Amino acid sequence: MPDFAPLPDPPYYAVIFTALRRDDGDPGYSAMADKMFDLAKQQPGYIGVESTCSKDGLGITVSYWTDEAALMNWKAVSEHMLAQQLGRKRWYSHYTLRIAKVERHYDGPEGR
Amino acid sequence: MPDFAPLPDPPYYAVIFTALRRDDGDPGYSAMADKMFDLAKQQPGYIGVESTCSKDGLGITVSYWTDEAALMNWKAVSEHMLAQQLGRKRWYSHYTLRIAKVERHYDGPEGR
Repeated sequence: MPDFAPLPDPPYYAVIFTALRRDDGDPGYSAMADKMFDLAKQQPGYIGVESTCSKDGLGITVSYWTDEAALMNWKAVSEHMLAQQLGRKRWYSHYTLRIAKVERHYDGPEGR
Repeated sequence: MPDFAPLPDPPYYAVIFTALRRDDGDPGYSAMADKMFDLAKQQPGYIGVESTCSKDGLGITVSYWTDEAALMNWKAVSEHMLAQQLGRKRWYSHYTLRIAKVERHYDGPEGR
C-alpha cells in the first residue's frame, strides 16, 4: 500500500478512523485489514487511504472518498460490515470515526 | 498525551497531517514534536489531537479545532512556524496536510 493518498480537487470526503487495539494478538486481524484495504479500492468513489499504527496499538486510518454517497456505500458493503462487527466485538478497546469534508490541502516539502 | 481527542458537537475542524520522516534519526525531532503538542493545547479553539507513527516512519497526526480561525491562528504561531520550517527542510521526505470540516462522528465499541 502506498503511504500517501492522491490529492484530487477539493471538496472530497475523509473518514478518520482512530482505534486502539486490544492486546490479544489475534492473527486474523491483519489478514482482515489487508482484505478491507483491497476491497475498499474496488468501491466506486474511492480515492485512497493512509494508515499507520504505533507499536502500542494506536492506529489512525484515513480513507478518502469522492462524495458522501461513496462512503455510505462502503460502510454498507457486506464483507466490510462483518469486519466492522469483529472490530467492535474483538479487536478494538476503543475507536472513534469521524466523517469530514476536505476543503483544501497542500503537500510538501516545497521544491522536492 | 491521551490517545483520543474529545468529540464536541459537530461541526468542527480537523487538520490531517500525514508525513513520512527522513531516516536521519535527528534527536531534535521528538523534543520539537512534544513542544508542539504542548503549545497547541494552549491555543484558543484547540479541541485535541490524535497522533501515531509506525516504525517505518509514516506518521498521521490529526488535530481538532473549533473553527477555521483557530486553526489559522495555530498555523501562524511563531514557534510553530519554526517547527514547520524545520519539518520542510530537515525531517520529512514528504507530507500532505488537509483541512476538513467534521460533519459527524461516533465512537465505540457500543456497550463498553
